[in-house]
Amino acid sequence: MLPPWRSPLSGALHRNRSEPFSRYFQLATVTPEGYPSNRTVVFRGFLEGDRSSLKIITDIRSAKIQDIERQAMGEICWYFTKTREQFRIQGVLRLVKAQDQDADLLKARKITWQKISDAARSQFAWATPGQPVMGERKKDAETRGRGDGSNGNPTQNFVHPPAIDKSAFDVEPPDPHLPLDTFCLLLLVPKKVDHLQLRGDPQQRCIYQLATDTTWSSQLVNP
Amino acid sequence: MLPPWRSPLSGALHRNRSEPFSRYFQLATVTPEGYPSNRTVVFRGFLEGDRSSLKIITDIRSAKIQDIERQAMGEICWYFTKTREQFRIQGVLRLVKAQDQDADLLKARKITWQKISDAARSQFAWATPGQPVMGERKKDAETRGRGDGSNGNPTQNFVHPPAIDKSAFDVEPPDPHLPLDTFCLLLLVPKKVDHLQLRGDPQQRCIYQLATDTTWSSQLVNP
Repeated sequence: MLPPWRSPLSGALHRNRSEPFSRYFQLATVTPEGYPSNRTVVFRGFLEGDRSSLKIITDIRSAKIQDIERQAMGEICWYFTKTREQFRIQGVLRLVKAQDQDADLLKARKITWQKISDAARSQFAWATPGQPVMGERKKDAETRGRGDGSNGNPTQNFVHPPAIDKSAFDVEPPDPHLPLDTFCLLLLVPKKVDHLQLRGDPQQRCIYQLATDTTWSSQLVNP
Repeated sequence: MLPPWRSPLSGALHRNRSEPFSRYFQLATVTPEGYPSNRTVVFRGFLEGDRSSLKIITDIRSAKIQDIERQAMGEICWYFTKTREQFRIQGVLRLVKAQDQDADLLKARKITWQKISDAARSQFAWATPGQPVMGERKKDAETRGRGDGSNGNPTQNFVHPPAIDKSAFDVEPPDPHLPLDTFCLLLLVPKKVDHLQLRGDPQQRCIYQLATDTTWSSQLVNP
């Protein structure tokens, strides 16, 4: 049986399907320093045979891996622009890397790799994300008055960044049947869903919570 | 002088201005339990005379207040759908409540209150956000097989929620010159900005960091 929030979420996905970006959401994690971290990721569907866990993909060289290995809780914020509704989905994040011991999850990782495009697969063969671009040095710029009488315009450095060496990104598409080791399936297993509908008078908000392994409660709350 | 990331951000705001939701972004905070929390908020412009701090508004009864009082770091994720670019803005969150000691910030709070619509102001007179709707009880639902032979459909409870008592939301618009005590101005003072442009071959990513009080560094990094 579907969790009770699946029906409104599937409805939102359907009613916003004309916008490709309706499948993007923001995933928040906590860094090892205890700071919040937030980025846009792509919804890759629900885990096969599970109907509750949301699939995301990520590069094992990405900074979010360290966040998740230290603090497995994550929160998705998913705003649908056309129907003006938001789902905040709190849950446990589960990384599925090449060395995973769970055969079912390894299979799900492989299926997900097969389903994505050549362009998406190629990114996992790119140079390490977040590392300085080869040959690029860090630049500094004063952002307020210098007090030295100069009237230079240091911000001009930022307006025309030099060309990037494209060779680190111009790769052959990887084998669609053999996931690269950098490819990580990331699952969010929901524990709490906060659904806010801005349309309507008044707005409507419902909180769903996992009470036991199999039972969800729901409660209408003030928006 | 403007921080170096202001020009690309202002450009994105301008090029995406046809979409009202381009002024919405997701704000991540950390809860007192150390979990990430994430919600959509509205960009209310830059702080007057500051040119760097982003203005947000919030209700002092909102759960994010406790997050921020415990951990002042926040991260905004701002994705622009039309130009396909993302700004991740990490910074320190500063709450400006009615009792604030800083006269300039109190003035900014009042200006912001005056600028928002009657509808936006009215929300600060609504019933406490996140509290159960009056007269509404929590519901439970099994989401998998019950094993008791019944074939009831517990999810039907969720499909047609009962009507909400509208009186708690049907309020007179508050005085536009006198901010309600529930109204809180929230500033994010940026420390780091990660700008990713998905368009282009290859994608381009630049990280800006506040090196001193007045100096920003910038570094092109791999996307």
